[in-house]
Amino acid sequence: MEMSHPAVHPVAVPPALTEPPPRVRMKDYQGMPGTLGGLALRLAQLGFAVLSFSIMVSTPDFTQVTAFCYLVAATVLQTCWSGILAVVDIYALLVRRSLHHSFLVGLFSVGDGVTSTLTFAAACATAGITVLIDNDLGQCGENHCGKFEAAAAMAFLTWVMATPSFLLTFWLLATS
Amino acid sequence: MEMSHPAVHPVAVPPALTEPPPRVRMKDYQGMPGTLGGLALRLAQLGFAVLSFSIMVSTPDFTQVTAFCYLVAATVLQTCWSGILAVVDIYALLVRRSLHHSFLVGLFSVGDGVTSTLTFAAACATAGITVLIDNDLGQCGENHCGKFEAAAAMAFLTWVMATPSFLLTFWLLATS
Repeated sequence: MEMSHPAVHPVAVPPALTEPPPRVRMKDYQGMPGTLGGLALRLAQLGFAVLSFSIMVSTPDFTQVTAFCYLVAATVLQTCWSGILAVVDIYALLVRRSLHHSFLVGLFSVGDGVTSTLTFAAACATAGITVLIDNDLGQCGENHCGKFEAAAAMAFLTWVMATPSFLLTFWLLATS
Repeated sequence: MEMSHPAVHPVAVPPALTEPPPRVRMKDYQGMPGTLGGLALRLAQLGFAVLSFSIMVSTPDFTQVTAFCYLVAATVLQTCWSGILAVVDIYALLVRRSLHHSFLVGLFSVGDGVTSTLTFAAACATAGITVLIDNDLGQCGENHCGKFEAAAAMAFLTWVMATPSFLLTFWLLATS
């Protein structure tokens, strides 16, 4: 008796989908921690903060105005923060390591938020006083209005460079 | 000849996963647009902005200082924005409608970011000038330092109430 032998081909059964669906992972947009854009933003923040600090401390009587002393303190803090983060970015780029750990991203986000807010507050206070001396009182003859304005402008530019860092890190925190 | 017939059980193969993974959808945290917490934040912003505006315009000579005029303008803008958003929140709560449309969330996020930044800048400039008049120059006898300080404090409180609105709306934008 001739019998046909049924050919049984084993079918690779995919494992049951018991794991949760993969989380939506954001790709590395330029400007986020650990990217070249992020490093460029940090270096720009660092540069403008150092410029603002240098211009303000080069005026002999800045210690007489509380807001100007506060600007110096805020730019020192911003310089330290941006400097540390620039080193972290360089390390991450050199060893090709992602900085998407949720604790790190949370830390960067809070640090960016605090330092950029303090720098912006100092820039606004300095600008307010400079406009008061220059436009409202017309006492630029006795004061270094040009230097105060330049220091405030550099602090504003520091904030302009720090804000994308904060927003992108906060976005990363929300989506990671 | 006795032969064993191999039992072939058809295996239900799950369909290939061609659809994208489900998007991570954030639930309605209190403070987001269209929630009771969000409405409370809007009303607080509105109240503090109106208070700051009223205190500043009640000083007879505020128009002589540019930063004080700017505070008045910023609080008017914040009052309009927070008032409109409060009405939108009340409407959403009454008709039980979600405000998670991406265009709306983007609009709220940009609006919150701009108005809170302008209010914060005005508060910082006013505070800087008030500290200059009070601590650095000691001229509070001829000026309404108490009122300027109160107006700056109310503007800071407006910003404190506007910041959670911005952060939560931005978070919603990132995750929606």
